Amino acid sequence: MPQRTAFASELAWPDYHDAVKDGTTPILIPMGAMEQHGHHMPLHVDVLLPTEFARRAALEIDALVAPPFTYGYKSHQKSGGGNHFPGTTSLDGATLVASLRDVIKEFARHGVRKIGLVNGHYENSWFIIEGIDLALRELRWDGITDMKILVLSYWDFVGEDDIARLYPDGFPGWALEHGGVLETSLMLALYPHFVDLSRAVDVTPASFPPYDVYPVKPEWTPTPGTLSSPKEATAGKGELLLKVCTEGVVGALRAEF
Amino acid sequence: MPQRTAFASELAWPDYHDAVKDGTTPILIPMGAMEQHGHHMPLHVDVLLPTEFARRAALEIDALVAPPFTYGYKSHQKSGGGNHFPGTTSLDGATLVASLRDVIKEFARHGVRKIGLVNGHYENSWFIIEGIDLALRELRWDGITDMKILVLSYWDFVGEDDIARLYPDGFPGWALEHGGVLETSLMLALYPHFVDLSRAVDVTPASFPPYDVYPVKPEWTPTPGTLSSPKEATAGKGELLLKVCTEGVVGALRAEF
Amino acid sequence: MPQRTAFASELAWPDYHDAVKDGTTPILIPMGAMEQHGHHMPLHVDVLLPTEFARRAALEIDALVAPPFTYGYKSHQKSGGGNHFPGTTSLDGATLVASLRDVIKEFARHGVRKIGLVNGHYENSWFIIEGIDLALRELRWDGITDMKILVLSYWDFVGEDDIARLYPDGFPGWALEHGGVLETSLMLALYPHFVDLSRAVDVTPASFPPYDVYPVKPEWTPTPGTLSSPKEATAGKGELLLKVCTEGVVGALRAEF
Amino acid sequence: MPQRTAFASELAWPDYHDAVKDGTTPILIPMGAMEQHGHHMPLHVDVLLPTEFARRAALEIDALVAPPFTYGYKSHQKSGGGNHFPGTTSLDGATLVASLRDVIKEFARHGVRKIGLVNGHYENSWFIIEGIDLALRELRWDGITDMKILVLSYWDFVGEDDIARLYPDGFPGWALEHGGVLETSLMLALYPHFVDLSRAVDVTPASFPPYDVYPVKPEWTPTPGTLSSPKEATAGKGELLLKVCTEGVVGALRAEF
Amino acid sequence: MPQRTAFASELAWPDYHDAVKDGTTPILIPMGAMEQHGHHMPLHVDVLLPTEFARRAALEIDALVAPPFTYGYKSHQKSGGGNHFPGTTSLDGATLVASLRDVIKEFARHGVRKIGLVNGHYENSWFIIEGIDLALRELRWDGITDMKILVLSYWDFVGEDDIARLYPDGFPGWALEHGGVLETSLMLALYPHFVDLSRAVDVTPASFPPYDVYPVKPEWTPTPGTLSSPKEATAGKGELLLKVCTEGVVGALRAEF
Amino acid sequence: MPQRTAFASELAWPDYHDAVKDGTTPILIPMGAMEQHGHHMPLHVDVLLPTEFARRAALEIDALVAPPFTYGYKSHQKSGGGNHFPGTTSLDGATLVASLRDVIKEFARHGVRKIGLVNGHYENSWFIIEGIDLALRELRWDGITDMKILVLSYWDFVGEDDIARLYPDGFPGWALEHGGVLETSLMLALYPHFVDLSRAVDVTPASFPPYDVYPVKPEWTPTPGTLSSPKEATAGKGELLLKVCTEGVVGALRAEF
Repeated sequence: MPQRTAFASELAWPDYHDAVKDGTTPILIPMGAMEQHGHHMPLHVDVLLPTEFARRAALEIDALVAPPFTYGYKSHQKSGGGNHFPGTTSLDGATLVASLRDVIKEFARHGVRKIGLVNGHYENSWFIIEGIDLALRELRWDGITDMKILVLSYWDFVGEDDIARLYPDGFPGWALEHGGVLETSLMLALYPHFVDLSRAVDVTPASFPPYDVYPVKPEWTPTPGTLSSPKEATAGKGELLLKVCTEGVVGALRAEF
Repeated sequence: MPQRTAFASELAWPDYHDAVKDGTTPILIPMGAMEQHGHHMPLHVDVLLPTEFARRAALEIDALVAPPFTYGYKSHQKSGGGNHFPGTTSLDGATLVASLRDVIKEFARHGVRKIGLVNGHYENSWFIIEGIDLALRELRWDGITDMKILVLSYWDFVGEDDIARLYPDGFPGWALEHGGVLETSLMLALYPHFVDLSRAVDVTPASFPPYDVYPVKPEWTPTPGTLSSPKEATAGKGELLLKVCTEGVVGALRAEF
Repeated sequence: MPQRTAFASELAWPDYHDAVKDGTTPILIPMGAMEQHGHHMPLHVDVLLPTEFARRAALEIDALVAPPFTYGYKSHQKSGGGNHFPGTTSLDGATLVASLRDVIKEFARHGVRKIGLVNGHYENSWFIIEGIDLALRELRWDGITDMKILVLSYWDFVGEDDIARLYPDGFPGWALEHGGVLETSLMLALYPHFVDLSRAVDVTPASFPPYDVYPVKPEWTPTPGTLSSPKEATAGKGELLLKVCTEGVVGALRAEF
Repeated sequence: MPQRTAFASELAWPDYHDAVKDGTTPILIPMGAMEQHGHHMPLHVDVLLPTEFARRAALEIDALVAPPFTYGYKSHQKSGGGNHFPGTTSLDGATLVASLRDVIKEFARHGVRKIGLVNGHYENSWFIIEGIDLALRELRWDGITDMKILVLSYWDFVGEDDIARLYPDGFPGWALEHGGVLETSLMLALYPHFVDLSRAVDVTPASFPPYDVYPVKPEWTPTPGTLSSPKEATAGKGELLLKVCTEGVVGALRAEF
Repeated sequence: MPQRTAFASELAWPDYHDAVKDGTTPILIPMGAMEQHGHHMPLHVDVLLPTEFARRAALEIDALVAPPFTYGYKSHQKSGGGNHFPGTTSLDGATLVASLRDVIKEFARHGVRKIGLVNGHYENSWFIIEGIDLALRELRWDGITDMKILVLSYWDFVGEDDIARLYPDGFPGWALEHGGVLETSLMLALYPHFVDLSRAVDVTPASFPPYDVYPVKPEWTPTPGTLSSPKEATAGKGELLLKVCTEGVVGALRAEF
Repeated sequence: MPQRTAFASELAWPDYHDAVKDGTTPILIPMGAMEQHGHHMPLHVDVLLPTEFARRAALEIDALVAPPFTYGYKSHQKSGGGNHFPGTTSLDGATLVASLRDVIKEFARHGVRKIGLVNGHYENSWFIIEGIDLALRELRWDGITDMKILVLSYWDFVGEDDIARLYPDGFPGWALEHGGVLETSLMLALYPHFVDLSRAVDVTPASFPPYDVYPVKPEWTPTPGTLSSPKEATAGKGELLLKVCTEGVVGALRAEF
């Protein structure tokens, strides 16, 4: 028997309507970006990963996955290499905020009252918060006060034990995990045809001073664009991460919805 | 030998950079929407179709397809049934304008000078124009004056002869082709698993008065949400449309780029 | 006995107040533009015509005409020749949207609950829709949910029979009717001193490819700025159009209000 | 020999183009409002008066008058009675700013380099300044730095001697001249059919405390909406004002352009 | 016994909460600017003075003073010398409007229902009005309709008798009192260490024509940046002004709150 | 001999002009907030601390301190307790972005080419980045491409050794340092009269799940509003922090300017 789809957009509207009209079915929105991820990975890593986490979680908890946000906020030098890279294609903050505000309000109009934002791009974080705040404000003006929204960045569910297993030689910190072991392992586990480890560059973890400079100093970012080395990435680590993060996301959704 | 990908986001940034840095490779952006398409089709028809047209055209002319816009402007009653339907998930005009403006400017930063917007959602049209205008204005302030942008709505390439063949019993007009023979045939040709013709409702073509009313009068839209009947849709008609529209899009891109 | 004025702005406020406070008197807002209309007509055709249609309709149905919008959205090449012409003086989309939103809300504050937007400039259309949508949203937040708004583009009321009579040699399509027989005949019937047919250029109807290019290619627009020839325009055709369109507008208003 | 028109919008575009393309012909934009003006005058006083001053000045100095701004900023209690009156129909500040910015930039695109804003509505003043500032900023980004813009509020050209003659019993101050002797006399001189002095209410000049309260206290404004009495208005005073203000506006334009 | 603080920001939140939660304690917000004030005074005169007036008034009427707005609207040539001066550091109108709107709404969330805006920078005036209007509108959408807001520009409380005493040789008008006797005397009374009268330039009062020009003509402003001479300023006059204006502000707050 | 002031706003404009006109003198802008800081500290901790760090740094490197931003972005639950607290008075993201953009551009107009943003409120961080990005973009349109901007959050300069010394019983992480040992110690060292340690509540460090929920769940934040206990704060630790952070800030400024 074929499993039902996790993707809201694959439903005809009456089926979607049945699923969401009473507010019990959560909608999960993958928040992605088009961003460079080194020499060895493509530009849509930050769309593919949260979409897959959202899909897995949706199947577990009977949620639906909305179409992903395919463009995100500007890449920051210390977490994404900087927005000066070719390929990185970003929105102004106000644009991302408005997009999310609009979409949340539309789902609310459909009856949705539980939304999970599954973020795959760190730099989206604060503009997600603002988009939620503006949406909740306008929904309140429409008399809707029972909306509940979760923000889930999948990497936040990796525990200290997992880190010890994944990074036996020491953890560079999430800040430097752009295009590094975490994302590369996940891509190897899920989309190996999109990873070319032979092109991966074994960069020394970037070492930034404790302040930011604008315009960015390109020489601060390792030339390949990753902030740490993806060389130790493996599909096995990816499977572990998949398991841990999916469990974490599912657990959070179950706890709150 | 595997064919190269048409999708920009599947490239690593150095490959993307090589492709676009001198401005010769066009970028095609599919402009979609999440919108009801009747009882027999899913909510992402307007993303799937322009993405596929863009992909086919890109392979022909050595272009690259950008990530699609997954949300679009509000559905209008006379061309999309109205924005009151469940499932239809739309952006404010200013949000769509800003999104497109931002993305065009980012591609320009990468070196791109030829952009084709492949539109799959009629209601996007005027906000696309405004987004382009604002982007070209700001690019001009940055000294970039050699950007060329095409807007291509694939249905505009269906000629009168094709219409006669496709609609032997008379053409309802593009205005009523929402979820009708055109889109359904294309989906049958490309994504038959997303079409359930058994649920298609044989509606009488909608008959609207020559003016608009707001808030919309839901009773003006046929209950299933399509504005004409999809019953005569076939995969064969879809193949014809695919051929005609792809040739049209490719021809336009070749003529201008 | 002097006929009462149709123009709201010619009333003292107590009289205006008496007329609108209970919501029964409709307000008609002419939506115009300052735009080139060829060598033979002035720049305010798109203000004069909807204002006159609104005035005639208002006298028929006891409505009031608001001050016209004297500037409109950017001229599109395929319907207005393009926004590169001298004389064409246009607003950004967001500006037009905000202006209409504000004015609708103010009329609602006065008590008005029926508004007819009589549009004389095709390119205003989609921004009118957005302006209405934003106004209705904010009015809803103010607890006002009984506002009803009609959008009427007078040319939409010209029937097929009328077209056959007006264009014995074939109808170029509304798309090309910029500064052509329709508008010129209406101006000849209403404001002959503003038309100099001796300067009218007998252009071949513009033939555009089925896509748009930005920045516009000025060579696509016939040099005089009209998209079809005004040579066959006559005051008699204008009288017919006046009659047909006024009846259409009045009928729509009567049907809905 | 018929006199040429002063109104830009009455020209065909080639004539307009000839007039403005080298930047020597000034454009005068009447900045109006739709606002209550007491029981004895209509709602468009603030459009009619600046338009007429602009027209007279344009004929003197070979300028052209642009279409008026028919809606303006919110009426302030101490200068216009307050924005709570029926009939007063106002724009948000940002809307007025954007409208003026857009229009100035369009005239600059045509070649215009001298613009006079002839203001008829006091409350427009500061948003006019901001609109100009934003327009000049964006024009500068386009490399246009030779635009010169004048702001002229016609009443500012009434000298102390004139005031002594016009107000033999004492001048209430411009602040209270809303719907009073100044505007009424001008309307009597120019548009007597729009004035019904028999309905004028002989209000005691409003006496406001030296601070503002929001929401406004309606009881602070004299019931009829004027801030001082129009009873002493005469067509003769209007002729004097017309002469003085026109000379003032013309003198300013001559001095600066 | 130490006097309680007048400054809200010096309280711990439980104390602040106790003070404002029932809406009886007014909040006074000093509206300042960073603006040149001639050769003899610093750039923060427009912050210091309204903050001090607010502080004195707050102690009298048991109100609290919010943190000041440290940046304000662009300096106008005829009231502040013009925004081309070094040191003058200004906000766009929309920025000031949004800032004030946001802050008012936040205080309303805390329970505050009485707000006094104590303005120290004339050019803020109209954007203050707009900020209030937008805040009251959004508060209304939140069901809060009992907010009352006063706008107090301290100089408006100086009466004709006071003027006669302060300016025995004639009053240049408030318009020219930028950096003149009023502000300088107040600073001498309150912050003498910030005034260096030996650098004060005895300028002839500026004489502006009755219209504005943009871009400003720097030669219209006296070189030192003040619009009249501060030479006659004394600490004694400052004390008088302090007394008169504080009494005026206090009286207004008492009358309305 | 009195030391020169560090505060730009305490200078008369000619002195300010001399200091900045050639672009060598950096401007430091304290980025604050009005935010609850527990029962034992006032609402302006986030203004006082960055202002003092900026002042100390300015005296060291011959920079000038601009007026502080007295309001900041919304308090986040996991770093500031949440924006639902009384006293916390926040701006929308777009407002903060616009404010910073405007101010940076104004300083650039004065000649400034080196700006240091000394941040005292964590939640400002991403909106600071956006404000800088928009300012640099518009400055680029004005031909100014040599502006350099640093963002310095003083706590980022506390090293691991310092942490070991300051938190002998273990470091809760910066995330929980809201109103905790760090800020309280600094306030004890600098402004002891604003700290009432007797009211400090010895909360268990907040323990948040690895995701966010909106609207916030107030029960997640310790009742007093601090996220960890301030009980171990001492003036001595404050002196150490002052030294370390000032040295860090000064070192960064020296390195980059």
